[in-house]
Amino acid sequence: MNYSAILETIKNEIAPYARLGHQADYIPALARVNPDQFGICLQTLDGETCAIGDADVRFSIQSISKVFSLALALHFEGEGLWTRMGREPSGSAFNSLVQLEYEHGIPRNPLINAGALVTADVLLAHLDHPEEFFIDFLRTLSGNPSIGYNIEVAVSEHSCGYMNAAIANLLKHYGNIHGDLERVLHLYFMMCAVEMSCRDLAHAFLPFANHQQPFRYDGIALTTSQIKRMNAIMQTCGFYDEAGEFSYLVGLPGKSGVGGGIAAICPSRYAIAVWSPRLNAKGNSIMGMKALELFTTLTAESIF
Amino acid sequence: MNYSAILETIKNEIAPYARLGHQADYIPALARVNPDQFGICLQTLDGETCAIGDADVRFSIQSISKVFSLALALHFEGEGLWTRMGREPSGSAFNSLVQLEYEHGIPRNPLINAGALVTADVLLAHLDHPEEFFIDFLRTLSGNPSIGYNIEVAVSEHSCGYMNAAIANLLKHYGNIHGDLERVLHLYFMMCAVEMSCRDLAHAFLPFANHQQPFRYDGIALTTSQIKRMNAIMQTCGFYDEAGEFSYLVGLPGKSGVGGGIAAICPSRYAIAVWSPRLNAKGNSIMGMKALELFTTLTAESIF
Amino acid sequence: MNYSAILETIKNEIAPYARLGHQADYIPALARVNPDQFGICLQTLDGETCAIGDADVRFSIQSISKVFSLALALHFEGEGLWTRMGREPSGSAFNSLVQLEYEHGIPRNPLINAGALVTADVLLAHLDHPEEFFIDFLRTLSGNPSIGYNIEVAVSEHSCGYMNAAIANLLKHYGNIHGDLERVLHLYFMMCAVEMSCRDLAHAFLPFANHQQPFRYDGIALTTSQIKRMNAIMQTCGFYDEAGEFSYLVGLPGKSGVGGGIAAICPSRYAIAVWSPRLNAKGNSIMGMKALELFTTLTAESIF
Amino acid sequence: MNYSAILETIKNEIAPYARLGHQADYIPALARVNPDQFGICLQTLDGETCAIGDADVRFSIQSISKVFSLALALHFEGEGLWTRMGREPSGSAFNSLVQLEYEHGIPRNPLINAGALVTADVLLAHLDHPEEFFIDFLRTLSGNPSIGYNIEVAVSEHSCGYMNAAIANLLKHYGNIHGDLERVLHLYFMMCAVEMSCRDLAHAFLPFANHQQPFRYDGIALTTSQIKRMNAIMQTCGFYDEAGEFSYLVGLPGKSGVGGGIAAICPSRYAIAVWSPRLNAKGNSIMGMKALELFTTLTAESIF
Repeated sequence: MNYSAILETIKNEIAPYARLGHQADYIPALARVNPDQFGICLQTLDGETCAIGDADVRFSIQSISKVFSLALALHFEGEGLWTRMGREPSGSAFNSLVQLEYEHGIPRNPLINAGALVTADVLLAHLDHPEEFFIDFLRTLSGNPSIGYNIEVAVSEHSCGYMNAAIANLLKHYGNIHGDLERVLHLYFMMCAVEMSCRDLAHAFLPFANHQQPFRYDGIALTTSQIKRMNAIMQTCGFYDEAGEFSYLVGLPGKSGVGGGIAAICPSRYAIAVWSPRLNAKGNSIMGMKALELFTTLTAESIF
Repeated sequence: MNYSAILETIKNEIAPYARLGHQADYIPALARVNPDQFGICLQTLDGETCAIGDADVRFSIQSISKVFSLALALHFEGEGLWTRMGREPSGSAFNSLVQLEYEHGIPRNPLINAGALVTADVLLAHLDHPEEFFIDFLRTLSGNPSIGYNIEVAVSEHSCGYMNAAIANLLKHYGNIHGDLERVLHLYFMMCAVEMSCRDLAHAFLPFANHQQPFRYDGIALTTSQIKRMNAIMQTCGFYDEAGEFSYLVGLPGKSGVGGGIAAICPSRYAIAVWSPRLNAKGNSIMGMKALELFTTLTAESIF
Repeated sequence: MNYSAILETIKNEIAPYARLGHQADYIPALARVNPDQFGICLQTLDGETCAIGDADVRFSIQSISKVFSLALALHFEGEGLWTRMGREPSGSAFNSLVQLEYEHGIPRNPLINAGALVTADVLLAHLDHPEEFFIDFLRTLSGNPSIGYNIEVAVSEHSCGYMNAAIANLLKHYGNIHGDLERVLHLYFMMCAVEMSCRDLAHAFLPFANHQQPFRYDGIALTTSQIKRMNAIMQTCGFYDEAGEFSYLVGLPGKSGVGGGIAAICPSRYAIAVWSPRLNAKGNSIMGMKALELFTTLTAESIF
Repeated sequence: MNYSAILETIKNEIAPYARLGHQADYIPALARVNPDQFGICLQTLDGETCAIGDADVRFSIQSISKVFSLALALHFEGEGLWTRMGREPSGSAFNSLVQLEYEHGIPRNPLINAGALVTADVLLAHLDHPEEFFIDFLRTLSGNPSIGYNIEVAVSEHSCGYMNAAIANLLKHYGNIHGDLERVLHLYFMMCAVEMSCRDLAHAFLPFANHQQPFRYDGIALTTSQIKRMNAIMQTCGFYDEAGEFSYLVGLPGKSGVGGGIAAICPSRYAIAVWSPRLNAKGNSIMGMKALELFTTLTAESIF
């Protein structure tokens, strides 16, 4: 398939959406990003790589980091992880406290903020230097030793992240955070503040599409079955309360972040990452969603 | 792949689960079914059929009917259907009024009761004799002209179905049912009361796995894209508040019913139906879930 | 105290509010009421009666009827009534299904629709001709043998009352309605459709202010303690989700209806009824609320 | 009326309830209180004082402090206070985050934790040394210069008060806390940690029963109307989700705390305080509720 031509077609077709929506602006470091950027990078298991636009510009991966921290937590805890969180779609906004209170501190799934805070607590229990380990893991996965944290973003989010602090306190109230609250929040905000490009993300997601070769990076090992199950979670829970919409329109397991990035995979085929800062009301990149919808339509390659 | 051997293995491995759970007993006709039955039928796009156990015993398909009525509604209304319901997972129990009230009468998706009641209202608007049309459509899809309604089940459910009547009244209150309430409820309960065997269901679901050949039965036509999108909805919404669990453990688009049946498909590969009346707390067949989990594990054929 | 002068003052002071809000218009019979009417009637235990404006015009008492049906139900069931409903304020809109579902079919209190539907079911179990009995009881209480039902209102409300039908079905689902649903709804809508004037209502509420003389009308007997407890319920639950507001601004036990009427009592002192059809967003009469606020301020006679 | 004899009767009649329920034990300082204590103190506006049992033992007033902080906040902000909180009963548990999230950070009323946290924020904005001012105010109101904070209680509650921290962070998220979060929480926990006896509390509540004489203590002035309105709020909101129950059974404005204390007033008559540490499931003192129910029954003096 001529992926280059397809990416070019997509770029043209989504041009009318270029000015819709607004980027996240709750902290200065995100607010000052040029919103009119767009990049996309595809990497196939056959070794092909295809990129257009701002595919090498780094951006804040934000909630996409939840996929990587979940991989680590699954390695450390195995199926035992599910005593502390569910794997059902949340059916409501990504930071809703309501469900968490009704369900007595058990987050619905690991890809909402509450679940990722518990995941961060798990990493703290298993790693002496979780921040260092996490970025090393991402450097290995992405094949790019130069990626790193944006400390300004982490500090800004931590200082104004009252909703996440409320969630963390509620989890602690229900006994579902074992470590120190401030340490958990620090690690959580650091993981959100990693900066990667579309190229980095596509490379880092490719192992989740690969069922032939065991997942083993920096001592973190997952079975094929675990990889498939992570894909299942991305499919049902990866897009806040737009998971059904993404599944309907795109049909790939994936994860979005408020930085405007989306990473997705087609099992046994490819990984794809797209980035554009302008978001819809649900917090997902407008051009990113549209680009991926066109991609699976034009290639006729979705999981369905 | 030796599917026969795999089905035999499954039958043996799930034996320890045979007495767990209880069948639905809210109406006499369901309560008197022998709960210790188990059947499974696989049909591939290559033309292979494989069945074991009680695969030819007919049972009440209940909510599995929601997939067929959705197919009809999509044919009649196209994307306009989504002005009257969403396609997001519900994140709560299958008959919860709460979400419906908060969202002002717009059901979360077509596979929960509220959505299927709106779907029934759509069919009433397009068909003069919807009950007759529906059963003819299923006879065509299943290739079995002898299947039919169990009128006793429909009448019993209608006479004690206060929760569904509450939902229907709430939908009417919000203007999302246009036709006569009693007609809508009658059609809804009739569709739930269809009786089919695993063999019938596997045959009837096979077209949803087939992306090569246009879906066209009894004048009802769906595009490949529409079929894929129906699969996406089954994947995220097909198992009440256990959709994530089914996706995680099984990894196939499908739909369950409180009669104990589950039908699922693997795109471009096969359709599979399983039946066993004993249910877990979420209303899904215990042996059915377990059998499908083993099937995708042993065949390594899931969508992920 | 010169009550006449006070009522005149009130009438003048509330004039600026005369055009605010809109009358209920969900059925034709309410929509065609002249919205610019205002009446007030005070009756004291000393025998004084004071009325101004449209105090003798009859209007639809609507939810004010819930006080009278509660009196009957307490007579028939005594404290046993509280196994079927609570006596806590609802904290949400007057017809919310949410709370009812979370609390498994036990209405929060008898003055919201759900509670009044259960109350109607109680009356059906104790009375052969509840509609006749109820209107006779009100004629006795009000001392006016000419008051009656507005059948057009009852029929209209019944035919479009989908929310109340949803509530009634939900109650039935939880086993908290024992009788026939249609009979319960018919009685409920009939009781709401009684027409009385401010003078009638003030007279009918006076016994609830009188702790010296036993309550005994048409064979319905309540103890002083029961009367006081009914006042407590009116105080905390009488104004939908504006009970706290009414308590704060007026400080009297009372009950409002969407017909624009409000009846209230000052224990051991007086009963007062006010009517004006224009409602605020919470469904309470704007001029009625304001008039009563002024009345307790000017007389310095509230329960606090 | 022979109040002494009435209190003795009550003491005898509630004896069967002496071992029901459990004291609060979420912090050591509360857990080690002898649970089998009971005291009651009545003070009338005529100058009579009547006390029995452990009426002079000091206990943690906990949420009863919310009445005093509300008095201060009303003095400082007047009716403007209601832009930051409501005055409606909450209809759910005393620390529920759900309602707060649905209502975008506006607490339902000042007597639930969320409202009292906003009140603490108000005091911080108006007072340089709010902790000192508050205890001086209570010493003046109670006529007892020796009452004070139990620092151990304040520190313990602060260190394990994750639910309150969650609420405070949520309020901050919605912009309804202006000051420093830790300062707000410190003041809040300090106010809850005041220790007073029944005698102290009865004395301190008496001004809220007195409509003849202006409320003016330590420069804090409230009008008679404001006092009455505070009573209205206590009536509808003073007992978490048992406000209706207390109103029904007792019929007095009042406030309870998890330390086992309850203070209540009868306007123009008296103030009464009762204490017994064992609580019911809603967090209110079992013997305290029962004692007050008997008191208003035996004296026939309630507001209804």
